[in-house]
Amino acid sequence: AHIQLRRGMAKSKFEYVRDFEVQDTCLQNCWVVVRVDGRNFHRFSDQHNFTKPNDARALLLMNHCAKSVMEEIKDICLAYGQSDEYSFVFHRKSNWYKRRASKFMTHVVSQFASSYVFYWNEFFPEQPILYPPGFDGRVVLYPSEQNLKDYLSWRQADCHINNLYNTVFWALVQKSGLTPAQAQDRLKGTLSGDKNEILFSEFNINYNNEPVMYRKGSVILWNKVNEISKKVIKLPHEAEEKEVEVCRVRNQPVVLHCDIINDAFWEEHQNVLSAES
Amino acid sequence: AHIQLRRGMAKSKFEYVRDFEVQDTCLQNCWVVVRVDGRNFHRFSDQHNFTKPNDARALLLMNHCAKSVMEEIKDICLAYGQSDEYSFVFHRKSNWYKRRASKFMTHVVSQFASSYVFYWNEFFPEQPILYPPGFDGRVVLYPSEQNLKDYLSWRQADCHINNLYNTVFWALVQKSGLTPAQAQDRLKGTLSGDKNEILFSEFNINYNNEPVMYRKGSVILWNKVNEISKKVIKLPHEAEEKEVEVCRVRNQPVVLHCDIINDAFWEEHQNVLSAES
Amino acid sequence: AHIQLRRGMAKSKFEYVRDFEVQDTCLQNCWVVVRVDGRNFHRFSDQHNFTKPNDARALLLMNHCAKSVMEEIKDICLAYGQSDEYSFVFHRKSNWYKRRASKFMTHVVSQFASSYVFYWNEFFPEQPILYPPGFDGRVVLYPSEQNLKDYLSWRQADCHINNLYNTVFWALVQKSGLTPAQAQDRLKGTLSGDKNEILFSEFNINYNNEPVMYRKGSVILWNKVNEISKKVIKLPHEAEEKEVEVCRVRNQPVVLHCDIINDAFWEEHQNVLSAES
Amino acid sequence: AHIQLRRGMAKSKFEYVRDFEVQDTCLQNCWVVVRVDGRNFHRFSDQHNFTKPNDARALLLMNHCAKSVMEEIKDICLAYGQSDEYSFVFHRKSNWYKRRASKFMTHVVSQFASSYVFYWNEFFPEQPILYPPGFDGRVVLYPSEQNLKDYLSWRQADCHINNLYNTVFWALVQKSGLTPAQAQDRLKGTLSGDKNEILFSEFNINYNNEPVMYRKGSVILWNKVNEISKKVIKLPHEAEEKEVEVCRVRNQPVVLHCDIINDAFWEEHQNVLSAES
Repeated sequence: AHIQLRRGMAKSKFEYVRDFEVQDTCLQNCWVVVRVDGRNFHRFSDQHNFTKPNDARALLLMNHCAKSVMEEIKDICLAYGQSDEYSFVFHRKSNWYKRRASKFMTHVVSQFASSYVFYWNEFFPEQPILYPPGFDGRVVLYPSEQNLKDYLSWRQADCHINNLYNTVFWALVQKSGLTPAQAQDRLKGTLSGDKNEILFSEFNINYNNEPVMYRKGSVILWNKVNEISKKVIKLPHEAEEKEVEVCRVRNQPVVLHCDIINDAFWEEHQNVLSAES
Repeated sequence: AHIQLRRGMAKSKFEYVRDFEVQDTCLQNCWVVVRVDGRNFHRFSDQHNFTKPNDARALLLMNHCAKSVMEEIKDICLAYGQSDEYSFVFHRKSNWYKRRASKFMTHVVSQFASSYVFYWNEFFPEQPILYPPGFDGRVVLYPSEQNLKDYLSWRQADCHINNLYNTVFWALVQKSGLTPAQAQDRLKGTLSGDKNEILFSEFNINYNNEPVMYRKGSVILWNKVNEISKKVIKLPHEAEEKEVEVCRVRNQPVVLHCDIINDAFWEEHQNVLSAES
Repeated sequence: AHIQLRRGMAKSKFEYVRDFEVQDTCLQNCWVVVRVDGRNFHRFSDQHNFTKPNDARALLLMNHCAKSVMEEIKDICLAYGQSDEYSFVFHRKSNWYKRRASKFMTHVVSQFASSYVFYWNEFFPEQPILYPPGFDGRVVLYPSEQNLKDYLSWRQADCHINNLYNTVFWALVQKSGLTPAQAQDRLKGTLSGDKNEILFSEFNINYNNEPVMYRKGSVILWNKVNEISKKVIKLPHEAEEKEVEVCRVRNQPVVLHCDIINDAFWEEHQNVLSAES
Repeated sequence: AHIQLRRGMAKSKFEYVRDFEVQDTCLQNCWVVVRVDGRNFHRFSDQHNFTKPNDARALLLMNHCAKSVMEEIKDICLAYGQSDEYSFVFHRKSNWYKRRASKFMTHVVSQFASSYVFYWNEFFPEQPILYPPGFDGRVVLYPSEQNLKDYLSWRQADCHINNLYNTVFWALVQKSGLTPAQAQDRLKGTLSGDKNEILFSEFNINYNNEPVMYRKGSVILWNKVNEISKKVIKLPHEAEEKEVEVCRVRNQPVVLHCDIINDAFWEEHQNVLSAES
């Protein structure tokens, strides 16, 4: 008992260390973007035999994890992913955890990481996961809607450039038998047009016919869906129970693969960035 | 090709958005603590039937995840965990990722979260994991060694206070049949001495004999171990291959359960906070 | 020589301390407001016999200092002042000193402070300045034009509320002979309407006829003026020198006293916040 | 009245803009250094005919301003100045204005700037001040006493290196008639020993005999002094008033010119950085 008392006192004696935490509030009225990136995913994809240049299973797993993050954190109004990265946009009016940057990034990145392992088997039924992967995360603020759209355009343009490059690179390696070094050499200094030309003339590939998820990445938005479920009820004036259909409107994250650089996307989805969404 | 060119240009047009990232460098020469906390672990522990007041499997899983984090991030010189939280201490001289706070916390928290799911089955072979858990993380800086020790003492004092409370609370509920509300009422205003007395007189429990992992939490340190492995070699002047034992010194995270509030711990482990460690 | 050499080496040995400076860049594309406040100006105004409730000389000196700040720092697009405070707005596109917050606030506040003493005599020819006054400063960011306008409206609304209160308070003290405590008591709980009524019925003052600088504060904008100067030139084909008038367009800070809460002000001065200004 | 009411409401409508201010608390238990630097002092010193390489009047004015800052802000435990810069050290335990960085730097820099103009005439009686000078300020944190001492050593080493250079440079210009470009050329690549040699052989100057304020800069510490003042009192049992001497201990900033790089200084002034000072 005596010892415990001392400890109880000790606690308050030590509690001053809480004052060393500093506030990291995100500026009000700015769009908050959390970007998650795979750590050492080059190695991870090698060891788990990812198909090159794109592994559909891996991309679908990424999308599933992103949806899992959004289901947990409703203040995210949009997400965009490609390759081993995913960006999550919190609405400018969000006051989630008082807009603390560390809360934004650690909740998102940990939910993403645990989901990645949790759902792995669903997408890679024949490839066991060998070790727990790491991710990093960061927070960036965008004061205007245009800045936010430009951020997302930047990531989609990055997707395009990398995917075009990788598509040609792996065609040269896998189909023409070049070594990686030779393929790299061949592509040095080429423009987009040159790469398209190589694909078409040497491999009979029209790049624009490649799967749209590879070329454009994935956008996730909230969508209202009617969820119909069956329920057994017993009405007061009836002897028998009976089964009825119950319809409930539910918000659900939905994955799209489309251009988000041009205005058409934003015109079609005006409510995404509006105050009420 | 024409479209690609436009996109290529578009990329650089959008790249200005990178300037919105702000530096979040941790002050030089300070101890960097990353604390990870389970998100909604009250619910998680209920749904996964954690034993009350302590579930050894859950604590051992936490320890295993913390070791996995340390194996990935060698600049962590010490970790301390209790309940659903774990604190990781980066050495004051660490220059890992240029001391960017977001790197520190997101790498730690994501590695912890993915490890939690990855190693779950090892510790809960008969209880499947139902959904991917979330964690949050934060970074706190401590300028002096004393501040750091006081931080760790604060967490261990917290462990003690909560565990003593929970031990009595669940004894009252599980063994005396009180409702949670009655147990809470019974404990209102009691001091440590009173709680020890209840445990002893009513349940014949000497609190100091409770498992030390529950009372003190877990400390993880690096320990040099001799790792002996067998290797088949062929010596130049010998016809046959032969198997030899190879001994290598390896740094390994080791879990301890002991008092870290008193000086004895730090005297015994002087190298932990020293510059060379 | 030997000693000097040691010192030269010493310098680089110490230079590591520069790494302890942290970046404090203001988020891109946000309006940067620096607000300067007089420190202990209650005492300062007493000791320098400021007229109550308003001292025109003091307000004109504040305006003059603000203009002096703007002449030094051209990236300020607007300033608003009242009582012993002044707010300076840097354009959202400003890249002055790489948008470092400490540069913004210390340059503004030091220029303001030195100007205050420098120009004192011009505005208080019969009242010597007794000691050097202090000011404090802060930086606040506003992501949208509406946020910025609301900030300025907040300061002007504050000016109105304080000035109405002070006008009645000092009338009660100076003209009705109430003690400060009695005047304060009399005003407790009164609304704006009540205060107007007291002014009108007891002192025959129509508040709306009070000087507009007291009621609205001061706005400073840049204005293009034609500056005509005389210059003596000698034309090549003429024997005599002759004096000509040279006209140059110059940007000059101009003080206004007007409502900035309603839209009319911003419609009239559309270029103030536009990108080109 | 109606208008006032609307405005009253308007105020609270606008008050949300206060939430855009962010906390800039300095980490607990760190030494807080505020460094003030003259803005464009090259031009300022030219226009006010400062003596080269050192103007004693200007340095003494700087010292006086620094003392004025310390008298206003008692939490400063030490200051060090040289050339057109001054560093102020707040004690690691200081909780002045809740350790807000903006308060530290703006109060110091504004008090310094207003003092500079206020006391100018005292030090430059025959040279009027032509315009209000600007200064900038910054805050840097140092977690350990050694870091702080190294910071101060860095500034004093800087003083030494610049002053040695300037002393030779101006000797070459003023006494040997070199142009500034020629003098610069002559000194390119020279070490401290070379510069001492030039001073001695060409100008018969022993650098170590140069005024210590120029070579070492100025340190300001608090010093307890006995302040004796005369007071007229009337004792109850005496008929006559009489004059008595009253002695009061007062803390006063005192300027020193000495080495602060070696340990001797800190051994002599142990209380400066101790907790009680």
